[in-house]
Amino acid sequence: MRPYIRKINYYECDRMGITHHSNYIRFMEEARICYLEQLGYGFEKLEAKGLVSPVLGINISYKLPTTFPDTLQIELGIVQLTSLKVGFSYTMSVNGKTVCTATSTHCFMKEGHPVIMEREFPDLYEAMVELKQHTTH
Amino acid sequence: MRPYIRKINYYECDRMGITHHSNYIRFMEEARICYLEQLGYGFEKLEAKGLVSPVLGINISYKLPTTFPDTLQIELGIVQLTSLKVGFSYTMSVNGKTVCTATSTHCFMKEGHPVIMEREFPDLYEAMVELKQHTTH
Amino acid sequence: MRPYIRKINYYECDRMGITHHSNYIRFMEEARICYLEQLGYGFEKLEAKGLVSPVLGINISYKLPTTFPDTLQIELGIVQLTSLKVGFSYTMSVNGKTVCTATSTHCFMKEGHPVIMEREFPDLYEAMVELKQHTTH
Amino acid sequence: MRPYIRKINYYECDRMGITHHSNYIRFMEEARICYLEQLGYGFEKLEAKGLVSPVLGINISYKLPTTFPDTLQIELGIVQLTSLKVGFSYTMSVNGKTVCTATSTHCFMKEGHPVIMEREFPDLYEAMVELKQHTTH
Repeated sequence: MRPYIRKINYYECDRMGITHHSNYIRFMEEARICYLEQLGYGFEKLEAKGLVSPVLGINISYKLPTTFPDTLQIELGIVQLTSLKVGFSYTMSVNGKTVCTATSTHCFMKEGHPVIMEREFPDLYEAMVELKQHTTH
Repeated sequence: MRPYIRKINYYECDRMGITHHSNYIRFMEEARICYLEQLGYGFEKLEAKGLVSPVLGINISYKLPTTFPDTLQIELGIVQLTSLKVGFSYTMSVNGKTVCTATSTHCFMKEGHPVIMEREFPDLYEAMVELKQHTTH
Repeated sequence: MRPYIRKINYYECDRMGITHHSNYIRFMEEARICYLEQLGYGFEKLEAKGLVSPVLGINISYKLPTTFPDTLQIELGIVQLTSLKVGFSYTMSVNGKTVCTATSTHCFMKEGHPVIMEREFPDLYEAMVELKQHTTH
Repeated sequence: MRPYIRKINYYECDRMGITHHSNYIRFMEEARICYLEQLGYGFEKLEAKGLVSPVLGINISYKLPTTFPDTLQIELGIVQLTSLKVGFSYTMSVNGKTVCTATSTHCFMKEGHPVIMEREFPDLYEAMVELKQHTTH
């Protein structure tokens, strides 16, 4: 799968001259959406099916500062997958150097109720199983 | 009416060490909501009546930089008021010095249609007429 | 010159489901940086020369709502150019439809003092003169 | 110590109508600054001493959604304290219900070098030791 690439914006940097740490949480969302699209589940399709995937928790570790106009590359993997929950892993790098690593845990909900992924969206579940098998980080 | 007061946050400052100019647009929204509440139209009441007030345009002039942890004071006035449109004015100051002035124009909509304020919400319209009479800036 | 293209992010949309109006001010900054780079003045070069260009004022008109995952195209022009000030114009569109227009005024500063562009940065000034001649909006 | 109180802003909510999860990282920073001020180390004092405290990592767990215009209360504690690192804990609640819990780890730096807190800033270190003793969550 193709990593997610994006430039750091000027307004995303703080008084210390570096990317404010809160923004990485947003970059993770961008990367997640990019990968789900590659798995055949773009946002419109998820929305059309009434599927939302709220964030249950995030664990993030800041290794090196980044700044505008760095180009950030994010590789996403799956480190946990059950019928009800998925755990994504993120490796963020600039010029090949890891600047930040993170994981996020999500459930999938439909009309306010948790969804059993493998039953209701078997193709997305299968795609995630495969991504999990290829996740080494 | 009581001015809207808020502190500049650390993460609202940019690489130059000053409040990023985009954030003033958000401070204006905060002040608008604070004044509408003082006029008897808090957000819940507007929402319960199905009323939204999209921004049509903004004109903003940056006079002096501000930074964390400055305390910003915003005085709001009404400079234009017709059946369909309202124009708010904003004077933002720190320690009595004007740092930014702005105006914003809004309409009021209900279920996707423009609302004639003086007919459908005469009490809010009257309150705005009065605020307009007291607006000197 | 090549227009600036960027996707609206999920987190840039508000409770009404549309791009929050404050974000367009940030998109304008992104477009400005992209065009200055095309004019031969990328951020690193400006910074190396100690040049900053604070925003003096913005005038923005919201025509149509946008939302995630719309792709926004921004065309930038120059509508005002003196020794001390430059006025940029922005036409933002989605699928060929204008969604927002704006202008922003800037000065150029070096070590806390205003810079006379045509004297100190004649090549950048010339490039801006030319962009102004091609600006029709 | 007095908890940090702040209202959720309209523009902090997303398309799902709830506070976007990235914003809690910013609320944590606001609360941290508020508590350090209560410990006698307001931002100006830290800055005057050339002290910065970069974030090394964050662990956050989202329990319940919040939205505008909820009033968020944040209680901060210290769960880890060594010569080089401090770990803060955050309990965020709305109307007495816990909506989010988190921890963040920081070091203290001066002129690019890590600072041994108890040696160089013994009064701040002592205040943090005391806060740690009173931290139950």
